[in-house]
Amino acid sequence: MTQMDKIISLCKRRGFIFPSSEIYGGLNGSWDFGPLGVELKNNIKSTWWKDMVSSHDETINNKSAPSKYAMVGIDSSIIMNPLVWEASGHVGGFSDPMVDCKETKNRYRADQLIIFSIILKSNQSKVGNHYYASIGTTDSYETLELLEQHKKQIKNIIKNINNYEIKIIQEHLSENDIRENVLAPGAKEPGSLTPPRNFNLMFETHVGALKNKTTQAFLRPETAQGIFVNFKNICDTSRVKLPFGIGQIGKSFRNEINPRNFIFRSREFEQMEIEFFCRKDEANEWYIFWRNKRFEWYKELGIRKENLLLREHSSKELAHYAQGCADIEYNFPFGISELEGIANRTDYDLKKHMEKSGKDLRYLDDLEEEKDKKRFLPYVIEPSAGVDRAFLAFLCDAYTEDQVKGEKRTLLKLHPKLAPLKAAILPLVKKDGMPDYALEIYRELKNIFPVFYDEGGAIGRRYRRQDEAGTPYCITIDGESLSKDTVTLRDRDTCNQTRIHKNEIIDFIKEHI
Amino acid sequence: MTQMDKIISLCKRRGFIFPSSEIYGGLNGSWDFGPLGVELKNNIKSTWWKDMVSSHDETINNKSAPSKYAMVGIDSSIIMNPLVWEASGHVGGFSDPMVDCKETKNRYRADQLIIFSIILKSNQSKVGNHYYASIGTTDSYETLELLEQHKKQIKNIIKNINNYEIKIIQEHLSENDIRENVLAPGAKEPGSLTPPRNFNLMFETHVGALKNKTTQAFLRPETAQGIFVNFKNICDTSRVKLPFGIGQIGKSFRNEINPRNFIFRSREFEQMEIEFFCRKDEANEWYIFWRNKRFEWYKELGIRKENLLLREHSSKELAHYAQGCADIEYNFPFGISELEGIANRTDYDLKKHMEKSGKDLRYLDDLEEEKDKKRFLPYVIEPSAGVDRAFLAFLCDAYTEDQVKGEKRTLLKLHPKLAPLKAAILPLVKKDGMPDYALEIYRELKNIFPVFYDEGGAIGRRYRRQDEAGTPYCITIDGESLSKDTVTLRDRDTCNQTRIHKNEIIDFIKEHI
Repeated sequence: MTQMDKIISLCKRRGFIFPSSEIYGGLNGSWDFGPLGVELKNNIKSTWWKDMVSSHDETINNKSAPSKYAMVGIDSSIIMNPLVWEASGHVGGFSDPMVDCKETKNRYRADQLIIFSIILKSNQSKVGNHYYASIGTTDSYETLELLEQHKKQIKNIIKNINNYEIKIIQEHLSENDIRENVLAPGAKEPGSLTPPRNFNLMFETHVGALKNKTTQAFLRPETAQGIFVNFKNICDTSRVKLPFGIGQIGKSFRNEINPRNFIFRSREFEQMEIEFFCRKDEANEWYIFWRNKRFEWYKELGIRKENLLLREHSSKELAHYAQGCADIEYNFPFGISELEGIANRTDYDLKKHMEKSGKDLRYLDDLEEEKDKKRFLPYVIEPSAGVDRAFLAFLCDAYTEDQVKGEKRTLLKLHPKLAPLKAAILPLVKKDGMPDYALEIYRELKNIFPVFYDEGGAIGRRYRRQDEAGTPYCITIDGESLSKDTVTLRDRDTCNQTRIHKNEIIDFIKEHI
Repeated sequence: MTQMDKIISLCKRRGFIFPSSEIYGGLNGSWDFGPLGVELKNNIKSTWWKDMVSSHDETINNKSAPSKYAMVGIDSSIIMNPLVWEASGHVGGFSDPMVDCKETKNRYRADQLIIFSIILKSNQSKVGNHYYASIGTTDSYETLELLEQHKKQIKNIIKNINNYEIKIIQEHLSENDIRENVLAPGAKEPGSLTPPRNFNLMFETHVGALKNKTTQAFLRPETAQGIFVNFKNICDTSRVKLPFGIGQIGKSFRNEINPRNFIFRSREFEQMEIEFFCRKDEANEWYIFWRNKRFEWYKELGIRKENLLLREHSSKELAHYAQGCADIEYNFPFGISELEGIANRTDYDLKKHMEKSGKDLRYLDDLEEEKDKKRFLPYVIEPSAGVDRAFLAFLCDAYTEDQVKGEKRTLLKLHPKLAPLKAAILPLVKKDGMPDYALEIYRELKNIFPVFYDEGGAIGRRYRRQDEAGTPYCITIDGESLSKDTVTLRDRDTCNQTRIHKNEIIDFIKEHI
């Protein structure tokens, strides 16, 4: 069982994540969050909202911020006027190259196909200069396995290979003569792959009863555009002054050709995005501020720094309009992959919407220091995070196997802020005023934070269940509790037990969340 | 300006709600929630979640509940396996009758068309026995206006009408001879309406690159089915025993023919649904429990009881599988309309999914009292609420115009729990250690609940802004504050001002939220 399989299994077993519509065989790229999962997900979202948007103090110069700034939130609709996606470039350009295998009927993302280019030094083989294609991506553990298998396969066909190299297939697939020589995975004959064609990733639907071009609409592929088109509304109604940010949490949809890696790349996912508006000459400072602030956020919520990477894009990687971009990456069991992107998008988006809509989206500058008022389009810094990716990173980082008194146990070392349950109340005896005494404590805590009451089964099993749920504290109540008003508080990670007075429980837990 | 127009205007002006993609002319039936709106909406959702799901105490026999019960939450996907909607009956039956006007190209929901059946006592008129159709519903203020207009229109055509009556057009439109005599709104000749045809309200899309029957999928029209298909997963992983409920909050989509009444009937909306599973013989008791509990919830959050109705459906109105159904209705400015439905759905849904999926969804009963274990499908009570409808009801109920010192003011008497901001800190002077003193108080409160700091403009205008935002308390800080450490606390609804010590602010507000 790979590490990833173990995590998926725990998610299913403990009610974190189920395949969507599982009783009907599921739906590729869709997942449901179960009782523990929805609480963890809600905690991630509300922590982000609180840390980034609602509890931000706009009267104070925050640590490393270039100046004071304001934050507000919005919640825009998933189906928007389709002109939004024309202006943003999604109708024209939001696509992946796709190839089909005519023989196996499989479909591949062309940029995820890896080719073994076999260069034959001698010309004696029947196979000629055939290429061999295998599927996967360079950041995926699946790929590595496939590469291994592939090597064997090739070696079985041609005994004396002197040299071969790995190439990304995409750049070759449009050339006919090369395509004709590619043997697709699972195919018997080479030449079964079609030329790559662009496939738009937006889910399409129709609003109203007719189905034609005039009623065509899309499920948003990102929440960002909902912020841009409301920029003017927010300026007009919220009395915000530059610099300020607008945050949003919500679902987005992408018709991925190959959803994979559990909830990492799914077709329906949730985003936490900020568009931060500032003056052009301060944009780079704000870019650095947000890049670092977002990086620190994951660390503060417990992700080990050795698993977290901040990767600045090279100028080659940048979109033509961007002046800076960095990925926060996490070392997932399937490879290092993007958790969040932070970009300096210049005034590109507002400019596009201003052109397309014909509405003046310029910010009205009324700085008292300046004599004349003027209008301009602000620059935008965009920290764009995925809720599901953050969920998966917190989960992977928390997943631990250790030994307790010679017995193997699995636990989730989730940050107490994120843990679905903050504590479990576990009575040890059933006589002498129990479980009433335990229930009383449970009810007191229940009013303050999510706690669980469990009186069933051996205490060891009850501990294990809470360890797997990521509950940071177990409070056991025994015979001594009644006479001395003390309880035992067990720490999830260390298994250390401390005897404390029952009146100290709330303060202790509050301090840790 | 009607009451509804005033509320819509306030929503726009203060950043509660904007038309979606407004710079592109909007999108019918879609709305965006602005900075204040998203906070109010989040407060409604988190209060529901806390009150109904997460802080429910399953160890206690709650007031009027028949017995102890457990609650858990989930978050299922919007796009599900399409078989779900076949089993639920939505593919076959979730439709509205629709008619088109061939002349004006308008589209109507047949059951919302109202016909003036003009019965001519004398046969002298040229118009013969023409019918005249007008659009609207009986619960809509638009209808009443249209009826008025219509009366005039008819009177202009036929001078001596002795008698006319209003009929719902739907039942007549399938008869050719009647349809031929109907004059559609805006049309010049009668007979332009098509026969009613059923129009499925589910938004359709395609998952994957192909567009055909095999890839067809739907945006969920309700969150409920996501709960039913996860029933077994929850039973298997959450150790819940009957009776228990599963709650979910999430977006749903319905391709309404005529979205209207602001956010009351939109194409994209959010639901808060519970499916409560219990034994058949206890179902009616639980039905009554949930009906009353949900009714009380709105009252506890400040909706005036004279605006709230609990309407028990007659046996004629009930769906064939339902054994009881009640609507919680609110007296909106456009008429009394449904806020939430509570239904005893029997074991209908689980049975349908069990048949379609071939999976055993029966609950395994292991009551200790019973000798033998047995399996059965539980009954289901469904309290199904709309977030947007609740939002609108809270807003309409809170909307107030009164006079303060001879000046007209508009305020939102929102329950402090729901108010986007709990308090505003308003310094009155700018010298002698101000605004630092005020900022210090602001920062202390900011850590505990959402508060707003505003030092700009006349105090009267600052009060008005907070009144319109529904902020329950304004804290003004003046010259006396610095010497005596006291502040003035102004109550939004009464405008009463109380001088309190600054250390008392937090406790005072906490007590009221």
